[in-house]
Amino acid sequence: MAIATQRDEDPYADHAADRLTAAISRTGSPVCVGIDPVVDRLPAALCPTGGSPAHAVEALVTFALGVLDAVAEHVPCVKFQSACFERHRHLGIEALNRLIVEARQRGLQVILDAKRGDIGLSAEHYAAAAFDPCQDGQDARPDWITINSYFGEDGITPFLRKGFGAFALVRTSNPGGDTVQAQRLAAGQTVAESVARMVASIGGQALLGRCGYSALGAVVGATKPQEAAALRELMPQQILLVPGFGAQGGGVEDIRPCFAGDGTGAIVTSSRSVIYAFDPDTARWSSAVADAASRFAEQIGRAVGMR
Amino acid sequence: MAIATQRDEDPYADHAADRLTAAISRTGSPVCVGIDPVVDRLPAALCPTGGSPAHAVEALVTFALGVLDAVAEHVPCVKFQSACFERHRHLGIEALNRLIVEARQRGLQVILDAKRGDIGLSAEHYAAAAFDPCQDGQDARPDWITINSYFGEDGITPFLRKGFGAFALVRTSNPGGDTVQAQRLAAGQTVAESVARMVASIGGQALLGRCGYSALGAVVGATKPQEAAALRELMPQQILLVPGFGAQGGGVEDIRPCFAGDGTGAIVTSSRSVIYAFDPDTARWSSAVADAASRFAEQIGRAVGMR
Repeated sequence: MAIATQRDEDPYADHAADRLTAAISRTGSPVCVGIDPVVDRLPAALCPTGGSPAHAVEALVTFALGVLDAVAEHVPCVKFQSACFERHRHLGIEALNRLIVEARQRGLQVILDAKRGDIGLSAEHYAAAAFDPCQDGQDARPDWITINSYFGEDGITPFLRKGFGAFALVRTSNPGGDTVQAQRLAAGQTVAESVARMVASIGGQALLGRCGYSALGAVVGATKPQEAAALRELMPQQILLVPGFGAQGGGVEDIRPCFAGDGTGAIVTSSRSVIYAFDPDTARWSSAVADAASRFAEQIGRAVGMR
Repeated sequence: MAIATQRDEDPYADHAADRLTAAISRTGSPVCVGIDPVVDRLPAALCPTGGSPAHAVEALVTFALGVLDAVAEHVPCVKFQSACFERHRHLGIEALNRLIVEARQRGLQVILDAKRGDIGLSAEHYAAAAFDPCQDGQDARPDWITINSYFGEDGITPFLRKGFGAFALVRTSNPGGDTVQAQRLAAGQTVAESVARMVASIGGQALLGRCGYSALGAVVGATKPQEAAALRELMPQQILLVPGFGAQGGGVEDIRPCFAGDGTGAIVTSSRSVIYAFDPDTARWSSAVADAASRFAEQIGRAVGMR
């Protein structure tokens, strides 16, 4: 009985893919709002009140908390862009950890978009940075992290910890991604397709949740729909994290091939077109963000037949 | 006159490759000591005096400062493994920044081994995290950073800032690296060779220092000497950062092909076999580290004809 209670109290006890798919079902939309806060784009009302690094970070935190409040009832998941916090050094990391706690308290699934990757022991240190329990007992651990696939299997497995998940980069949404990822191998497939096979193999049977999806997912950009269909087929058990929708140019028709026939298996992420969906001088910036999140959730939810 | 003085005072004013090659010439050895501090491997005398995260980080800093003192007269360069610090969250980042300042004060060139990578704006944020001036005026900026190549050109160029350098991952030293990097393309070359061509092209003419080497270097593991020779040829203007020597199994004969015929063009890095070269219970751990750094510098310096 004591054990059962303890298990219920561990917010990371379930399989990460089960938590994410449950949150998607609950909200009726497979979307994620990317939180990439930068000082230059804050609402005028939140501009830093002083010139120190602490003032800048304080303003970012106030903004991000407002965004969390605005989006929490509309979407199942948020994704923090680690780089936006790292540029503020230790103050930024402290803010990031605090915001992860706040996001989780609002019932949101959390992806740490850190694109981490290294080999052996160093990969284990990165996994510890994300997933080791916090000594203050707070839930500052993300549910998922994004990782780089270039190192192969021993760069990926250290991130596969019980209760957590990782999205491995397969196909990025930037123009330059082609140079490496679209190269064709002697065996006929592209580099990205070969990486997809590797991810499907590492993230197979042993890592599946009750929902049928794996704790190892994949990042597949929305800007190349034909390729996305091929990658979807190569990775039937991976949840695809799909950037590139909105500000980066991907539309509804571009994201459809990332999903399985039943509308499961992917989560579409949008950052700037949601969190900066306000006129900089408006006082009502947070309702503009809430509206943008609601429209985004509605649009994608309809596109995959969940609404 | 004022301008000249100002320029002299900017420690990052010279081209990063010129600073690094000058430091290598001065010390007579193209080596780098990797600083990957972990609590479990500290000398007994430095074990944390309490159980809090702050105690752990304090112990790591004391150890790393001792390592810097021990190696500074023997080697031109140190490389901090970001993951070892990130696992201690904001306290670790604060410690890392402090240690970069301390390393630079000892005349050491500094590589931040962060394997960062992302696209567009996010890559710019990561570059800002490493290379933006610190508001307190301290030199907490590394001379070089390691970056991931999987994103292609627009994932690399944001890191190419005047006065700083980047080592792009081409061939890693881990067993799993083959799965992606050793795949053969339809055009005949391997994925790693194709990435090497891209790096050579991006890091060409406009990025060369007076020494003839580029501010864009490449990471090429020491564990595959035949491949290293081919990669050296594809990247004649890149300084190769060569991990895998020592603890990871690479020997002197394995690193030779990473260098140009005149003994320039590469820097060999070793971490655990130098910084943990002591009996855990000895009080004289720092002289053991100094001896190991001196032997490492001697061995590689001789192998490339600099001593």
